[in-house]
Amino acid sequence: MKILVDITLKIGVLDPQGKAIQHALGALGFAGVDGVRQGKVIELDLTETDRAAAETTARAMCEKLLANTVIENYEIRSA
Amino acid sequence: MKILVDITLKIGVLDPQGKAIQHALGALGFAGVDGVRQGKVIELDLTETDRAAAETTARAMCEKLLANTVIENYEIRSA
Repeated sequence: MKILVDITLKIGVLDPQGKAIQHALGALGFAGVDGVRQGKVIELDLTETDRAAAETTARAMCEKLLANTVIENYEIRSA
Repeated sequence: MKILVDITLKIGVLDPQGKAIQHALGALGFAGVDGVRQGKVIELDLTETDRAAAETTARAMCEKLLANTVIENYEIRSA
């Protein structure tokens, strides 16, 4: 089954990519952009068919490899 | 209001980052990973308060800047 993981920087962690996008949007004439943050989305295709088990596996993957939990939050959602 | 944009590579476009993650998960002992794709998630904080208008703006931003529509799909969702 497909599991999606959103990995975003924690609040307070500087996000230069987000700032660059915000600046570029302003230069293109888009007004009213108060903030932009960029994160990652990882789509996992697992052979596991049980949703709860697949999410538990995805959580372990996040803790061990996918996310740097010092500066990043992760959120697991179903595809 | 907050708008989230998922930007993912189209099917058929090579994703070396995803392959690297898949390989690393295997090396860490995670079995049953059939595929991994990595994309971006962009969180826009817009002054616009009307949902439909904000999503229309986000769509225009995707077409003009955020996504490379030749190789990437984008999907707009609410935070």
